[in-house]
Amino acid sequence: MADEPTILTEKRGRLAIVTLNRPAALNALTGAMMGAFNNVVAELERDPAVTAIVITGAGRGFCAGFDSAELVKTTETGLAERNLADRGVDEDLPAQFIGLLKVSKPVIAAVNGPAAGLGFILAMMCDLRFASDTAAFVTAFSKRGLIAEHGASWMLPRIVGPSRALDLLWSSRKVGADEALRIGLVDRVVPAAELLDAVAQYVDDIAANVSPRSLAIIKGQVYAGLSEPVGPAVREADRLTRESLSHPDSREGARSFVERRPPQFAPWTGVV
Amino acid sequence: MADEPTILTEKRGRLAIVTLNRPAALNALTGAMMGAFNNVVAELERDPAVTAIVITGAGRGFCAGFDSAELVKTTETGLAERNLADRGVDEDLPAQFIGLLKVSKPVIAAVNGPAAGLGFILAMMCDLRFASDTAAFVTAFSKRGLIAEHGASWMLPRIVGPSRALDLLWSSRKVGADEALRIGLVDRVVPAAELLDAVAQYVDDIAANVSPRSLAIIKGQVYAGLSEPVGPAVREADRLTRESLSHPDSREGARSFVERRPPQFAPWTGVV
Amino acid sequence: MADEPTILTEKRGRLAIVTLNRPAALNALTGAMMGAFNNVVAELERDPAVTAIVITGAGRGFCAGFDSAELVKTTETGLAERNLADRGVDEDLPAQFIGLLKVSKPVIAAVNGPAAGLGFILAMMCDLRFASDTAAFVTAFSKRGLIAEHGASWMLPRIVGPSRALDLLWSSRKVGADEALRIGLVDRVVPAAELLDAVAQYVDDIAANVSPRSLAIIKGQVYAGLSEPVGPAVREADRLTRESLSHPDSREGARSFVERRPPQFAPWTGVV
Repeated sequence: MADEPTILTEKRGRLAIVTLNRPAALNALTGAMMGAFNNVVAELERDPAVTAIVITGAGRGFCAGFDSAELVKTTETGLAERNLADRGVDEDLPAQFIGLLKVSKPVIAAVNGPAAGLGFILAMMCDLRFASDTAAFVTAFSKRGLIAEHGASWMLPRIVGPSRALDLLWSSRKVGADEALRIGLVDRVVPAAELLDAVAQYVDDIAANVSPRSLAIIKGQVYAGLSEPVGPAVREADRLTRESLSHPDSREGARSFVERRPPQFAPWTGVV
Repeated sequence: MADEPTILTEKRGRLAIVTLNRPAALNALTGAMMGAFNNVVAELERDPAVTAIVITGAGRGFCAGFDSAELVKTTETGLAERNLADRGVDEDLPAQFIGLLKVSKPVIAAVNGPAAGLGFILAMMCDLRFASDTAAFVTAFSKRGLIAEHGASWMLPRIVGPSRALDLLWSSRKVGADEALRIGLVDRVVPAAELLDAVAQYVDDIAANVSPRSLAIIKGQVYAGLSEPVGPAVREADRLTRESLSHPDSREGARSFVERRPPQFAPWTGVV
Repeated sequence: MADEPTILTEKRGRLAIVTLNRPAALNALTGAMMGAFNNVVAELERDPAVTAIVITGAGRGFCAGFDSAELVKTTETGLAERNLADRGVDEDLPAQFIGLLKVSKPVIAAVNGPAAGLGFILAMMCDLRFASDTAAFVTAFSKRGLIAEHGASWMLPRIVGPSRALDLLWSSRKVGADEALRIGLVDRVVPAAELLDAVAQYVDDIAANVSPRSLAIIKGQVYAGLSEPVGPAVREADRLTRESLSHPDSREGARSFVERRPPQFAPWTGVV
């Protein structure tokens, strides 16, 4: 058991399932585990047989956050121990999971239980959040004397608005699945037993009908657009439209539509 | 029938109704039709007898998007055929309906049926969306091998948040009126038979009680503010407040309020 | 009665209650009253015994806006009378209540009745909005021939999205507590008799469990983040994380967590 990997991967059709696997610790993250996570995701991004990636937790938790033993050590010994490179974090954008926003495929959180602290961040940096009715969300930073880390202060207000973001970040109160759906923190709530099936069904539908190239470009457009004024966003959209109109996927998309048949798009190679 | 115009206009009190009129094609847009639409809207903006403009579709559809025969042609022949000028699109902000954001009057979508692709964009670029219970929304681009065109990637996340925007843009799934209201994609849902009446009632109330100059300036403020930091937005608001305080409409607004009578504001001439 | 102060303050535990006290005028604001309000808030911000500030209204109203007699005078005599300095407003960010966003403590609106015009702005510039079932929201500017003043055009779209913001700013229609909750304009709705108790309970919980330094820094992060791209926001978050990891509050936060006891954080002195 001691040697079981803390990050598991599995394929279900064109969906890759990444499971945080420290169930006895509610999948709390160690530094080594975060490095392994980043490596696995990078590998799945390059795999043309994978349309989308789902992140979930083993056992009854999603992710309890940064391992508390390591947190104590970090707060006692300070910055010398904070080695971002070991975790595969970009020194120029030093947030733990913000790299997920750059992965050129849909990354979906399947939140099966408590998501706290860094686990909350992980869920938030996924593109979509499917939650089971047993999901719970806790920011936790304020109760540890910490701040809105890893981009939470930037992304959370764009997902739920500034006052709800402050409420969650300040109070560190537990938000259940129903409230999470009502305030827009999650996109779907399904019974726990059906959580991964719901994600798989969503991805199967996309894999059958949608251009992988379109998925990648649209993701880039949406996140870039959050940081820029309307003018540059629209001019870049026009440039991408012109490029797309000369790509085989747009011809296939138009032909399959008028011929009323399923499209056959090119696999995504990572090159626009 | 062949000669019936594809864009119809009608006045109801101070509301101008613009109807997309190719019902047999669910009002799919041809290039010529888009040019006619832009001309009609520009004319109604200049008309001082018009307080607001509503866009709707003839028959059972709102707008099925770009005409599929023209789409096939564009994807086959490429960019040479993409003549933005013919459609009245600004080369510097090359999005089909983004000019609606600059119209100095309320532009309201009355979504009476399916709004897909470019029809989805049209609904989104209106300031408010009133939907009938028969409305349906489909982004459609990803299924054609295309991208988030015409500013969709910038505006949609500001209306429904980034994860819902990605969900709609990626999956191209059909969203009905109830879900559209729940996620904020539309502002009102009313029975189909009452759709235009609901818009007319809303506009009648505004026309009777609100300064047309205020409508125009507030619209400009809101859209400019989406693209700028708080500092410039507040300083510009202060400048506009000073200007407004020396305009007759503010005196009439204050006097009519303390005298408890309806205000008599100046008609909007397009000059602040 | 004539000499009763128009701004009352009271402490309940670590919560400071600021009451607008012109109940016969539904707490409409005079210039002098706004100056007094700003002074009181500045004093409470410096008071280490205060964790959070709540703003409410005496009697059946929250705040009816700018005093109508003063509004008439301002619109008749124009700009010479508009003395921002007397009200304690920053000439560089000339919005009446936008200074609340810079107060380094939670500022919560307890909206007990109508909030109109400048009273609407006041509620909106509070970090959280708790509303009683008797609350009502009216923007009012458009009916006075005015514009979206005091940063409303910037903040309201970030709270409720651009189309709902335009709807409220244009129509000046009355929004009740239930709709306000549905569209995200308020964070909680409670029965009128329990309104202040609900706020006090929320603040008691925060005061017992959360670092005051964390509250202050998180508030600064969230509002700064609304005006900046993701890159600078994340790099600043990393800098603040490093600083926090060497502050006693983070050690106490981690230790109290693993020792399963309540934390004892340092009082907030206003110095990061």
